[in-house]
Amino acid sequence: MSTATAVNGPVKQVISCSSRLAEGRALVQDVWSIFNAANLPPDCLNLGQGYMNFGPPTWIIDAAEKALRGVVENHYSHPRGRIRLREAIKNFYSPRFGRELDVNTEILVTSGANEGQYSVFTAFLEQGDEVIMFEPFFDQYLPSVTFNGGKPVYVPLHPPPATIAKPTSNDWTMDVNELRQAITPRTKMIIINTPHNPIGKVFTRQELEQIAAVAEEFNLLVMLDEVYDLLVYKGKEHIRFATLPGMWDRTVTVYSVGKAFAATGWRIGFLIAPASIIQPTLAATTRIVFCSNSPLQEAAACGYEQAEKYQFFETQLSEYTERRAILIGAFDKLGLKYSLPEGTYFVLLDISRVKFPEDYPFPESIIGRCRDFKAAWFIAIEVGVSTIPVSEFYCEEHADIGAAYTRFSFAKDVETLKRAAERLEKLKQYIE
Amino acid sequence: MSTATAVNGPVKQVISCSSRLAEGRALVQDVWSIFNAANLPPDCLNLGQGYMNFGPPTWIIDAAEKALRGVVENHYSHPRGRIRLREAIKNFYSPRFGRELDVNTEILVTSGANEGQYSVFTAFLEQGDEVIMFEPFFDQYLPSVTFNGGKPVYVPLHPPPATIAKPTSNDWTMDVNELRQAITPRTKMIIINTPHNPIGKVFTRQELEQIAAVAEEFNLLVMLDEVYDLLVYKGKEHIRFATLPGMWDRTVTVYSVGKAFAATGWRIGFLIAPASIIQPTLAATTRIVFCSNSPLQEAAACGYEQAEKYQFFETQLSEYTERRAILIGAFDKLGLKYSLPEGTYFVLLDISRVKFPEDYPFPESIIGRCRDFKAAWFIAIEVGVSTIPVSEFYCEEHADIGAAYTRFSFAKDVETLKRAAERLEKLKQYIE
Repeated sequence: MSTATAVNGPVKQVISCSSRLAEGRALVQDVWSIFNAANLPPDCLNLGQGYMNFGPPTWIIDAAEKALRGVVENHYSHPRGRIRLREAIKNFYSPRFGRELDVNTEILVTSGANEGQYSVFTAFLEQGDEVIMFEPFFDQYLPSVTFNGGKPVYVPLHPPPATIAKPTSNDWTMDVNELRQAITPRTKMIIINTPHNPIGKVFTRQELEQIAAVAEEFNLLVMLDEVYDLLVYKGKEHIRFATLPGMWDRTVTVYSVGKAFAATGWRIGFLIAPASIIQPTLAATTRIVFCSNSPLQEAAACGYEQAEKYQFFETQLSEYTERRAILIGAFDKLGLKYSLPEGTYFVLLDISRVKFPEDYPFPESIIGRCRDFKAAWFIAIEVGVSTIPVSEFYCEEHADIGAAYTRFSFAKDVETLKRAAERLEKLKQYIE
Repeated sequence: MSTATAVNGPVKQVISCSSRLAEGRALVQDVWSIFNAANLPPDCLNLGQGYMNFGPPTWIIDAAEKALRGVVENHYSHPRGRIRLREAIKNFYSPRFGRELDVNTEILVTSGANEGQYSVFTAFLEQGDEVIMFEPFFDQYLPSVTFNGGKPVYVPLHPPPATIAKPTSNDWTMDVNELRQAITPRTKMIIINTPHNPIGKVFTRQELEQIAAVAEEFNLLVMLDEVYDLLVYKGKEHIRFATLPGMWDRTVTVYSVGKAFAATGWRIGFLIAPASIIQPTLAATTRIVFCSNSPLQEAAACGYEQAEKYQFFETQLSEYTERRAILIGAFDKLGLKYSLPEGTYFVLLDISRVKFPEDYPFPESIIGRCRDFKAAWFIAIEVGVSTIPVSEFYCEEHADIGAAYTRFSFAKDVETLKRAAERLEKLKQYIE
């Protein structure tokens, strides 16, 4: 049985469940379970969900094994995270933040970046507090906010105008006036995701400064989701919002060991923020998960300790540059527009010109959804490459903006991407 | 810096944090950070926090290493948990539940038992719903309930009467009329912890049947915390509440891989419940943590698959029986009363007769707390054995009941327990 069926099947509720589940869209079938491998042909190439088909480097696995052979490394960590990992993070990120990070008060290890951001909402939101997020948004933000009593408020990033022949992710733009108009007396937080999933946009200094001015004026907390911070392509600079003048005190930045080291199943992430933000968030995460798993924290520590020695992030970036080239090469061949990503391992393909029969045998889960759901399903079945339709990353009101795109992940080995590129040639016949 | 100082130090809040933290007692210094090794003399024997000073068996570590050498084993698990682990749980627990458990709808892997119980509250509580818990209670229940908008309601377990010369944990009794009186129109759930931390009590069939009748009458959800289910000593039977007539449909049972296999730092737990409870809880946990760490799930699967072959739980139980004997031997020698635990690796020592100078140099964190905090601190410093005062496991109103006890954990190797027993002889001079 797929997740989908099980989550949505008709189960008699003896005891009624919380209304927060419906508010957080948590009871409807999500895009991940619709486009789950289990629902697609077995030979479909999965460029949907953003996990790698390769593992972490062996020198990190060695460190995990060493930890597993110990005793304390198999038991509870301090809820702040293991000191070795906090030290490694401090040494790696202090130069990047331009300040000496305090391992006891400014770094908090969490059970993945996901639980990290969730805990921030638990720590700071009162019932009815508003949280601004830019659309398209990483879909977990919505339930994370509403489960903790908050109300999401959406500000769209505007797609590249049709006049741009070869758009990049930088051509997705924000309008600071729309941001200002979204502020109310209940606004508590802004979420910024840079490099941005699913666009690949790396926010410019000017954009971040505009947001900073608004945050300062209205005394807002700012959550930076920077889980792709080490995947920014040549020619583009990743600016850390927390380093902008005056922003450190109101900024919490979320990182992911899984994204950094190709270990999405390790569930280790961390937050960097001033003590005034870490302290309440520690109080929250300690009650939610108590602490994160210990042996893989030791391995993650080794990762940051030795990354430079192995030139790990430089090599990884050049590998992703090659992977990106293979995929966009296929799009160029098809003559389809896409937004060249400046960061992340995602790319948005404009599928407005992909034609499919209206009476195509779509499954029930697709019927009634935006056009991108149908296009992505059609491509998965007919071409054998699965992707994630982008309207899911918008609120209902703005879903039409996303309906022109589907998201490809190139967190796959070169061989898989070459095969996907070959298959995509088949799409030619469906382009009008 | 200790957790304590950091959590409670004066940190200027630029942005105010959520009121739920204070409601959940999450901003006050908790017992774990006061009696943290960092605050105690370095040679103090730690019989406080319930983690082992030995690791998981090597055959399980081997399985973890094998998983780490794979690819998919390092990436996202299905939010329900890895299928191998769910199958292993099904095979291990189906006979114990007297029913064929469905791996797709009745088993949910969580990031430790802690996150498992937390997710149930997220899934089911509306603002103001009441949750009944028996005192003394595992301290994480309180913030788990209040963070999710619930209100804890306390029903005390009554200590053994003074007339019983050699009480057991079974002499701690519940009064079903007190349970009935605690019910209101807002009551949604009852939490039962059996075998019970910190008492060691294994609820009798009769007690559970009395609770079942109340649950049925008022249509309540019942959460069973059974993380010590495989640590029940000879002569006592652990009854699974979910197997009582009519109870399956309203019961969710919480288990812990960390407690089962001496791997508290692995953060793997799971829930067994009907689909009507698992489905909303899956919706909650998927948003809180997305999924649990993958490689250690594979190792946990191996644990349940091969436990019988290695006679693991039988051996573990006889080891704990020996450890229990060493510790209670020391108490007997002192002539102090304790409640002989029928399950768990905890034992409550009655410290009412332990005398200490009123002007003893207690740290600030102890001043103003109940007598047991002072006694436990005094014993830690003077005798060199640290324990956990039991008033922390009560609401303020009933804290006096707990103030007569301190909790010893015997999840330590025989050598450590023998040294602790020797040190405890020194307590003799302070008994009046």
